[in-house]
Amino acid sequence: MDKIEVKSSDIDEYLRVAIDVAKEAGKVICSALEVEKRIETKESLADLVTETDQQVEKMIISTFHQKFPTHCFIGEESVSSGEKCTLTNAPTWIIDPIDGTTNFVHRFQFSCISIGLLINKRTEVAVVFNPNLDHMYTAKRGHGAYCNNTKLKVSDVNNLQNALILAEFGSSRDPEKMTKRVETMHRIVNKSHGIRSLGSAAMAMCLVASGRGEAYYEYGIHCWDVAAGDLIVREAGGVVLDPSGSDMDMMARRVICACNKDIADQVISLLQTVEFERDSEEVVSGK
Amino acid sequence: MDKIEVKSSDIDEYLRVAIDVAKEAGKVICSALEVEKRIETKESLADLVTETDQQVEKMIISTFHQKFPTHCFIGEESVSSGEKCTLTNAPTWIIDPIDGTTNFVHRFQFSCISIGLLINKRTEVAVVFNPNLDHMYTAKRGHGAYCNNTKLKVSDVNNLQNALILAEFGSSRDPEKMTKRVETMHRIVNKSHGIRSLGSAAMAMCLVASGRGEAYYEYGIHCWDVAAGDLIVREAGGVVLDPSGSDMDMMARRVICACNKDIADQVISLLQTVEFERDSEEVVSGK
Repeated sequence: MDKIEVKSSDIDEYLRVAIDVAKEAGKVICSALEVEKRIETKESLADLVTETDQQVEKMIISTFHQKFPTHCFIGEESVSSGEKCTLTNAPTWIIDPIDGTTNFVHRFQFSCISIGLLINKRTEVAVVFNPNLDHMYTAKRGHGAYCNNTKLKVSDVNNLQNALILAEFGSSRDPEKMTKRVETMHRIVNKSHGIRSLGSAAMAMCLVASGRGEAYYEYGIHCWDVAAGDLIVREAGGVVLDPSGSDMDMMARRVICACNKDIADQVISLLQTVEFERDSEEVVSGK
Repeated sequence: MDKIEVKSSDIDEYLRVAIDVAKEAGKVICSALEVEKRIETKESLADLVTETDQQVEKMIISTFHQKFPTHCFIGEESVSSGEKCTLTNAPTWIIDPIDGTTNFVHRFQFSCISIGLLINKRTEVAVVFNPNLDHMYTAKRGHGAYCNNTKLKVSDVNNLQNALILAEFGSSRDPEKMTKRVETMHRIVNKSHGIRSLGSAAMAMCLVASGRGEAYYEYGIHCWDVAAGDLIVREAGGVVLDPSGSDMDMMARRVICACNKDIADQVISLLQTVEFERDSEEVVSGK
């Protein structure tokens, strides 16, 4: 498929619609938590996550489909229900209706909606909205990244010793995976200013973009967790890479982002690979 | 010293003044970060922390001293500069001007001002203010805990498997201490829904009070980190204990708080003690 040309006015419209739909999704998520307050049973919680996830994704996709009928979609819920993760050059919205579902369940305030629009297999428009804190992160390729209209800039720390690192224990309880993760965190915390764990990949990437942490790495994420964060970090002046140090591959289920290459390299030297099956065979570089 | 009788109208006044002074302190902290944005060198950052910490503590103490000339004070900065941590039955303000200084340096949004007023060696009034997120947590003994006027209630999860735990790698890089901490986190994450690390004791306690996490434990904290959080958790319906399972001792430099005794006991069974020198010989129970 040939490369697609896009007008800058179209990009503006895509971003506008993405912001609006993220705000609408935020309302659904917040009201789901209100309803749950009245239910309060364990089974209802699990159902609530699935239902809210599905409801929000359907709402987002149907809005985009109505506005932009030729666009394609990759959504967390659609993929879990059997759709394939195939990406062409066509404008493709990659959507995580709720990033940080464990946080969502616990009302821990770092859950968000993540929406990335890829054209020619590169993110051109990114929106990450945390409705709990009312933080709207946006980026347009070549035009910077913002949080609630404040321009974002990564930190200028270049020594790991002075860096705050975002890292996670993850959701897998596989003993080998967990031991690797914990060992890696142990190494990193010893050589850095500290580790913070927030439980959301998209939020962590936005915090690196905001200069509130110097790096974030993760194994086991999916393309919908990072499609938006990727552009937000790059547009704030940061780097996004594969944990091997090579170009980021959005389908490889692993990522490191950092305020600069120096910090990324120092973190990379301490990482241990945790293996996960790819989202798709295709390599999708975020560059 | 005999027990002191306090009128409820006095308590209201203490809380009102504490809220006002916390808001003023928040402005100083936020503007310190604005100034720092223009400096951007490593040495200036370390100086900024010390200066801001001292400036905020002085401001808070001088305001209280002017309003309540008979009251006593224990502040992080005053103690570091050699004053003793002695507590009598007299009204005593225990103050942490910036809880989460590493977060403050990195502009990671979980730093806060923590103010607890102890009378007869028990916290009667508590204020924790996060100026970055504009979250004002308050409590008055017997009258509940609030965040920005919303009443707080702890989570009702009672099985660790369904619990989100707040825990930290801490600031000590002593290998033995760090290994114990990491091993404990490893055990806990395997038996729970997950671990989140925010880098502020006072904020973590407020999140447990808000039902956003089920438990938080820490070794190495000081009385000024927990004096306010202690009451906020209790007034939200939670428990605050020594990690041995006995009554909390505010001078023992260790704490566990949880949404209920079931969760506290399950976490306690997995903890390893990390030893720290006490803040003072005296036992101060928060009960």
